Amino acid sequence: MIGVLGAGQLGRMLALAGYPLGQRFRFLDPAHEAPVKDLAEFLRADFSDADALGRFASGLEVVTYEFENVPVEVVRKLARHVPVYPPPAALEASQDRLAEKTFFQQLGIPTAPFVPVRTRTDLDGALSEVGCPAILKTRRMGYDGKGQCPIREPAGVEQAWQTLTKSRKDAAIDAGLVLEGFVRFDRELSQIAVRGPDGSMVFYPLVENHHAEGLLRLSLAPAPDLPPTLESLARAHATRVLEALAYVGVLAIEFFQRGEQLIANEMAPRVHNSGHWTIEGAQTSQFENHLRAILRLPLGAAEVRGSCAMLNIIGEAPATPKVLAVPGAYLHLYGKKPRPGRKIGHITLCATTMSEVYESVERLRQLLTT
Amino acid sequence: MIGVLGAGQLGRMLALAGYPLGQRFRFLDPAHEAPVKDLAEFLRADFSDADALGRFASGLEVVTYEFENVPVEVVRKLARHVPVYPPPAALEASQDRLAEKTFFQQLGIPTAPFVPVRTRTDLDGALSEVGCPAILKTRRMGYDGKGQCPIREPAGVEQAWQTLTKSRKDAAIDAGLVLEGFVRFDRELSQIAVRGPDGSMVFYPLVENHHAEGLLRLSLAPAPDLPPTLESLARAHATRVLEALAYVGVLAIEFFQRGEQLIANEMAPRVHNSGHWTIEGAQTSQFENHLRAILRLPLGAAEVRGSCAMLNIIGEAPATPKVLAVPGAYLHLYGKKPRPGRKIGHITLCATTMSEVYESVERLRQLLTT
Repeated sequence: MIGVLGAGQLGRMLALAGYPLGQRFRFLDPAHEAPVKDLAEFLRADFSDADALGRFASGLEVVTYEFENVPVEVVRKLARHVPVYPPPAALEASQDRLAEKTFFQQLGIPTAPFVPVRTRTDLDGALSEVGCPAILKTRRMGYDGKGQCPIREPAGVEQAWQTLTKSRKDAAIDAGLVLEGFVRFDRELSQIAVRGPDGSMVFYPLVENHHAEGLLRLSLAPAPDLPPTLESLARAHATRVLEALAYVGVLAIEFFQRGEQLIANEMAPRVHNSGHWTIEGAQTSQFENHLRAILRLPLGAAEVRGSCAMLNIIGEAPATPKVLAVPGAYLHLYGKKPRPGRKIGHITLCATTMSEVYESVERLRQLLTT
Repeated sequence: MIGVLGAGQLGRMLALAGYPLGQRFRFLDPAHEAPVKDLAEFLRADFSDADALGRFASGLEVVTYEFENVPVEVVRKLARHVPVYPPPAALEASQDRLAEKTFFQQLGIPTAPFVPVRTRTDLDGALSEVGCPAILKTRRMGYDGKGQCPIREPAGVEQAWQTLTKSRKDAAIDAGLVLEGFVRFDRELSQIAVRGPDGSMVFYPLVENHHAEGLLRLSLAPAPDLPPTLESLARAHATRVLEALAYVGVLAIEFFQRGEQLIANEMAPRVHNSGHWTIEGAQTSQFENHLRAILRLPLGAAEVRGSCAMLNIIGEAPATPKVLAVPGAYLHLYGKKPRPGRKIGHITLCATTMSEVYESVERLRQLLTT
């Protein structure tokens, strides 16, 4: 049996990929609403609840996580009793924006300029160092655009400071902030990579991502019109990260593309929203490959079948019959209640060419905005 | 919530196809070991248990079945409270080999010659009518080669009579027998078709099937070297069956191919073992299309992606790492205990050409026989 920390949609899709391999799943999550609950064993408890953690760990073959804000100490504690993949060091690096950027830098992977900030005075110094515009971010608990505030001109410093420190009086602020220089870029790309315990690696094609209001809206796979050097550059960067961490499982790295440059933005030590298209669009899905890696099974091919897109369903679900009437569309609902700004599902589009994909994207966008 | 009668591997694969559509499932089955039990709500009870049936039906949107030997009266009872698809008439026709063949005949679909048999004297008359060799079968409860006995020469009549009537002193015998003339054929093909409540229909390509000891071992999709007229002939036959029954859901028809002729052998009013390759190999799987049909959603495209094969895993499972190391192989285990002659999983192979598929089939066959 596989234990998973976090019981959201990523966990749900892991379970759906794992049942055909004959696997069983147990999930632990403090959330009341758990997309996995209809289809797997679900323990609702705080990650800090030692009793629950014991019941969760009992009899597990391996533990993984589908949420990178699981406390590292919990994962380290579990790792003393049962193998935990990806390794806790990867979780630790990705939970802290300062540690993550420092780690990229040490590996020779370009990042935006960044300076740690603890005090208001630090912030002034940091801003003169990285220049304007810049983005002030909490070091911890950032995801989906949360915990960050842009500084467009020097006069906006005080407001950004107030906004970020006043709005989040919690551990996220105590852990400090980081000021990042604004990177001018052509587009965002992500690299989904998988590494097995034997060191074997598999790379999905680079994906182009479009965000709005801090949330991923659309991914295109493979990323169209890619300069020929970028695929191998992204794989080289990912390889360095995977090997430095003795990584096992799926890792996602988000890059900014500027011409033929890739600037690492952040990484996620887990299956990733920009890899959801792989369920239908790749020879092996990111979910199955994550499981293959943590179960010490041979990794599956990551080649894309034709051209694909993934659109997130945010807030409210469109009418299912209308979605399924679009050629090449595959619907994925997570069993979550609709709520503004909430990811409740996604749609994958598969076609022979990217221009067919674009046509279907346009049809779906109309369904998603009404 | 969708109710399913039967909780075996077909039910399991229906649930796995239905979760992404946001569906939930409840299964009813008298069996102790139920492949669905880890991943869906499971009621263990006899189909004749009225209380259990009431609990099962409560709050369901639609009922379907994954096992054609569910008692028709149970299905008719349920159908008074909740829509049941495929329609009970389809279940009824497919449960009785005599009714089934008569039905095909009435629709002008060729079958083997057949004569009903109740008594030993009937059998002699029947044999002189259909000739030798012939096969004596129970009218009811036949599947996976069970409930049948070949008569290779006239002297073998008595033994076949004894074997079949003595071995199964149950309702299957009370319901009578049928003697079928032996059909010389080139190969077995199956047609998987889907019909929605609006009359829309979708057809998977014809599949070539290989059996041994009464069990399906290998399916090839699309069937190689198909005479050009056969695909449309099979679709015409299937269309007549679907329309005559006002069918809703997936239907499988097994044909014998003799040159450019198709002779109907039997049908199954459910998703079918020879359609398992559609999970990875078709644009929409038979499981998803069955659910789309019974949920009144638009049917999905049934085109095959390249060339595919499906090998059943019977008895004992091969080593998972060896299976997954074969290019284009997808493993499906049903969570069943190994037992000789038992279907406990299958492997789908997908490749660009059928000759690549054959190569991988050979590799897998070695794993499956050791």
